[in-house]
Formats: sequence, structure tokens, C-alpha cells
Amino acid sequence: MARIAIIGLGYIGGSIGLGLRAAKLRDTEIVGFDDWRSARRAAGKQDAVDEIAGSPREAVDGAGLVILATPPASTSELLEEIAPALGRGAAVTDTAASKVKIEEWAGNHLPNGVSFIGGHPMAGDASAFGIDNASGDLFRGKRWFLSPSPNASDSAVKSVLGMVRELGASPHFLSSAEHDYVLAGVSHLPLVVSSALFTMLRGSEGWPDFGRAAGETFRSMTAYNSGDPSMTTEIAITNREQVQHWIDRFVLELNRVRNLLDEEEEEVFKEYSTAQINHAKFLGGDDLDPDTGAQPELPDATSQMAALLISPRLYERVRSMTKRSEEKEKEREARGRRWGRG
Amino acid sequence: MARIAIIGLGYIGGSIGLGLRAAKLRDTEIVGFDDWRSARRAAGKQDAVDEIAGSPREAVDGAGLVILATPPASTSELLEEIAPALGRGAAVTDTAASKVKIEEWAGNHLPNGVSFIGGHPMAGDASAFGIDNASGDLFRGKRWFLSPSPNASDSAVKSVLGMVRELGASPHFLSSAEHDYVLAGVSHLPLVVSSALFTMLRGSEGWPDFGRAAGETFRSMTAYNSGDPSMTTEIAITNREQVQHWIDRFVLELNRVRNLLDEEEEEVFKEYSTAQINHAKFLGGDDLDPDTGAQPELPDATSQMAALLISPRLYERVRSMTKRSEEKEKEREARGRRWGRG
Repeated sequence: MARIAIIGLGYIGGSIGLGLRAAKLRDTEIVGFDDWRSARRAAGKQDAVDEIAGSPREAVDGAGLVILATPPASTSELLEEIAPALGRGAAVTDTAASKVKIEEWAGNHLPNGVSFIGGHPMAGDASAFGIDNASGDLFRGKRWFLSPSPNASDSAVKSVLGMVRELGASPHFLSSAEHDYVLAGVSHLPLVVSSALFTMLRGSEGWPDFGRAAGETFRSMTAYNSGDPSMTTEIAITNREQVQHWIDRFVLELNRVRNLLDEEEEEVFKEYSTAQINHAKFLGGDDLDPDTGAQPELPDATSQMAALLISPRLYERVRSMTKRSEEKEKEREARGRRWGRG
Repeated sequence: MARIAIIGLGYIGGSIGLGLRAAKLRDTEIVGFDDWRSARRAAGKQDAVDEIAGSPREAVDGAGLVILATPPASTSELLEEIAPALGRGAAVTDTAASKVKIEEWAGNHLPNGVSFIGGHPMAGDASAFGIDNASGDLFRGKRWFLSPSPNASDSAVKSVLGMVRELGASPHFLSSAEHDYVLAGVSHLPLVVSSALFTMLRGSEGWPDFGRAAGETFRSMTAYNSGDPSMTTEIAITNREQVQHWIDRFVLELNRVRNLLDEEEEEVFKEYSTAQINHAKFLGGDDLDPDTGAQPELPDATSQMAALLISPRLYERVRSMTKRSEEKEKEREARGRRWGRG
């Protein structure tokens, strides 16, 4: 009989349990534990696990695969607590949104012969909580980052990979450092920005005027404030350096835009139409090839891309702008040649 | 026979025409004009206006109410062009997202006896374009800012107000300066931020990694890049100083958050849980009373507000945090008294 242990039976842990139970794995029992009695009770009622253990240690005892789905900040303690009960060859994974710190903790606490493979399912609806909202289909079609520790065994990696596939998610391997760098830019920074935007205006003198004037743009750009503040806090704390790195870069970017607004209208338009073209390509998934350069090309008027530009008026404007830039470029080149440069 | 002229028959102008025609105003004819032949033809086909004029001047000739729904950057020229044909007592309004510059242009070009009342309907779906997407119900229940020029006549203001009410929108008076300050914070800055976030990561080395790792947060926070870049450009240009002011303030805010991340976890959690509580109040509309202070109060455990905090675990954490702060506050006070301060 194989044994899978899930520690933490909330939205994510509960969904993993439900998904694995629905997969009807042969000769496998799924044991769960949660600090909170109400979560344990709900997990039992929903059949999210086969059995509820009396403690984390009891849950992992004899388990080949251990899944930690608890708040990241508690992971270090939890690893320390379960370490003595883990059997040789066991695979331990987690579900936190940052990976370097947790890999470090695993290195500190796990005994030899136990493999840690960091995991991060990209499935969280930031405003969904608890096992009551859990679903076995939560991860279907979603990306699941995996960051195996350098000394993780092949069989342990395969065991975690198998779980990800059973849940219908698509595994994506990144080292923990890469993961934290990339995710800080693409996920943690946007969360911080969404919160800062709200907090700044909420703290402004005359906030009621701002709040009353707020339309869709403000509401949607600040929507991430309704997420679990523990999650945002833990992301910010466990991935601090990377988040700070991206805040610094974003401040530079905002200052660039601030200066750009002093330029001629043509330059400002170039900024926003370039962003629109690149964004449409991004949504279409066709600029994610590593060979793509950073410079956008103006699509042909008859192409699908052109249709994304929506208005013919706009298309004309982008085209004439592109032409003007090309002419200026040629002029510059010609001048360069005349002066013996270029 | 009263005459209403609409110059610019795109998404907004077309929707105004359709809405006013649906209102079946007695003894009123609605005349329209657009530079683009295709827009004129579509407006005729959709009966968005009673009559298409041959030029802006012809359209406004004899009109008591003139609505400019053209790109803001062209408004100065357009006002100059129509000025000689405007009759004494006419009311001129517009639909641009910034108001100070346009009021200035109106002051420069409109003759005595013609009133300018700036208008800004908050109804734009940033990605909807053209009269084909227009709807007479577009403004129903939406806010419509009105900024009458200092010398606008009462009857002209009433005429524009009447139009707003016929379209089912809720009028909201703000001076043009107040409007541009408030909207720069609550609408123009978020647009700029959404674009800068995308442009920064799109321009980063290794963009494909970011693009592939991008989940819901990134997609939603950068969604405004699919809006009309002409609109963003014109907002940025016509409301430059205010947008720059808010970029500067946002940079300060981001630096504050950057430093906060060096603090203890409790401080970071306080930041994000305060944001969540305030955001829930904002969504509930109950913090827009001018008397509300900036400090959030922890709602009673049984209240509706507490339900918005979603998880009992979270509620406990916020409560214990609040208690600790109160205790510290009391301690500080006590100390203050002991030391003869406070």
C-alpha cells in the first residue's frame, strides 16, 4: 500500500486531495492533517482524503510522497517537525509561491535520503479560501512549477511529476532561483503594485472624491487587494530581495515614462501603440519564441494581427508613424555615412 | 425645431445619438458629422442621427446644443472651425477624459454668448471602438462629469444636464481642475501603470520566460494595453502635469513599500490586511463619507464586513494584530505620560 500525506487541508491542499482521490490511484491511501479542527472535519465530510491523521508526524509516517500545503512561513517549523518520521526515499513537495527560501529550509531540516522538490501550482484564485471552495479540477490545464533540489533523486522527482500529471496540470521545471526571479516580476510585483495603488489613493486627502470617481480601471487595477493578505505578506517576506529588485526596476520604468510625457505627442503615441501591438502578440501567444527580438513589427493590414488593432483609423496612424520613423532612420543612416560614421 | 449637433460619430458619439433618438425628444432634430465616410455611412444606417451634415460648420449651424465626441487632440482646431457658425446662446460640450486643456481651448476660440460645459462620461470600455459597438444604453447608470466654464449660462448648463439625464447617466459637477486632478489619480495613473508594467517585462531580457510564466495577475494588471493607444496618448498629453504628479507620488509610495519589506513580518501583514479591510469597505461603498478617517476599524466578528474577510483564521490574525497594536499604543501613551509627554 502506497501512502500520500497532505499537510494543510485548505483551498490548495483540499483540492489536491479531491483531485487525487478522483484519480482512483491503485493501492494508495491518502492521509491528511490540518492544524484546524474545522478544516479536518470538512476534509473528512468531503472525502478529500481517505484518513485524517492525529498529527503531521503521524500523517507522514510511512508516506512515499508528502505534500505541504500550509502557509509558507510555517514551512520551516513543519519540516523540522516531520523530519524524524520521514522514511528513506520519501519525496517532499510544497505549494508556496516562492521557492528559494523553502528549498533552503528543506536543506536544513530534511535527513539524507529524503528528496525535496519545490512545487508551485498557478491555480490560486487570490480571493478563494478554504476547503469549502476546493475542487479536484482546480489544477486542470494550469501550470505547475517544479524546482527539484540539487540532490533530489530521480524517483522522487518522478513521484511528484506523477502527482502533477494526475491532477491534470502541466509541469514546468525551473530552478528555485529562476522561479523566484521570474515570478517576482510577473506575479509578486503586480500584487504589490495593485496594493500600493489602492493604499496611496485611499490614504490621500480627499479620498472620498477619488473613491467616488473610481471607474472600471481603478477597480480592476486594485482588485488584488481582496486577496488573502497573509499570502501577499508571505510572498513579500519569503521572496523579499527579488520583489525589491523589481520594485526598483519599476520605479526606473515609471520615471522613464514620466520623462517621456515631456516629449512630442508622436513619441508618446509610439510608446502606447508599441505596447498595444506587443500586448496583442502576447495574448496571441506568438511572441514567446526565444528568437523574437524586442522590436515589434507592424503587421500587414490584412493579417489577423491588424484586426487586433481594431480601428482602421488607428492602423493608418501606426503605419504613418512607422513610416516616419523609418524615414528618419534612413536619414540618420545617410547622414552617418556622409560623415564617415555608420 | 430644436437642433442638436454631434461631431464625431464613433463609439461615444454614436451611442449619444442612439440614446437621444431613443428618448424621442419632441420637435428636436439630431444632426451628425464625422470626418470618416465609413462612420457617416454607419451612423446613417443605424439611425444614430436624423441627418448627416456635410461639414462640422453645417452641423452646428442653428444648433442649441453641440456635442464634440472627437479625439481630444483635435478639439482646439475643431472649436476654431465651428466658432463662426455657432449661434448666440448655444451650449457646447465634449466627452474627453481631461478637462482643463479643453476648457482653455474653448475660452480661446468660442465667441461671447456661447457657453462651454466640459463633459466626461465614465462609460468607455477601453477596448470598444467605433459606432458598430455603440449603444443607446451605454451611459445608463454611469457617472457623467460636468465642468461648466466660469462664464457658462444657466440655460446652457441645463441643456447639457438635460442631455445627460435623457441618456440615463448620473451627472456629477467638478471644476475642470478638480476633475483632472482626481481622474489623473484614479484613472490616468492606473492606465500608465498597466502599460509600464507590461512594457518593462516585455522589454526585459528573457521576456519569453516571463510571458510563459504569466498568470491571471499579470494578465489582468496589464489588460489596459489593449485599449486604444490614441486615447492613452491623448490623456497623457492633455493632462500631462497631473499624470506626472501622480507618477511622482506613486514612485514615493513604491519606495515606501520597498522599505516596509525590510520590516518585521507583522508590519508587512498590517500593510496588506489594512489594504484588504479598506478595499472591502470601498467595494461596499461605505467609506466614501467625507467624515471617515483614514484608519480602518476592525469590524465586529458577526458583521457583514467580517464576512468579507473570508477566513476565520485570517480574522483571528487581524484581531490579534489589532490587539497588539492597541496594547503597544497604550504602553506608548503610558510611557508618554510617565515622561510628561502626551
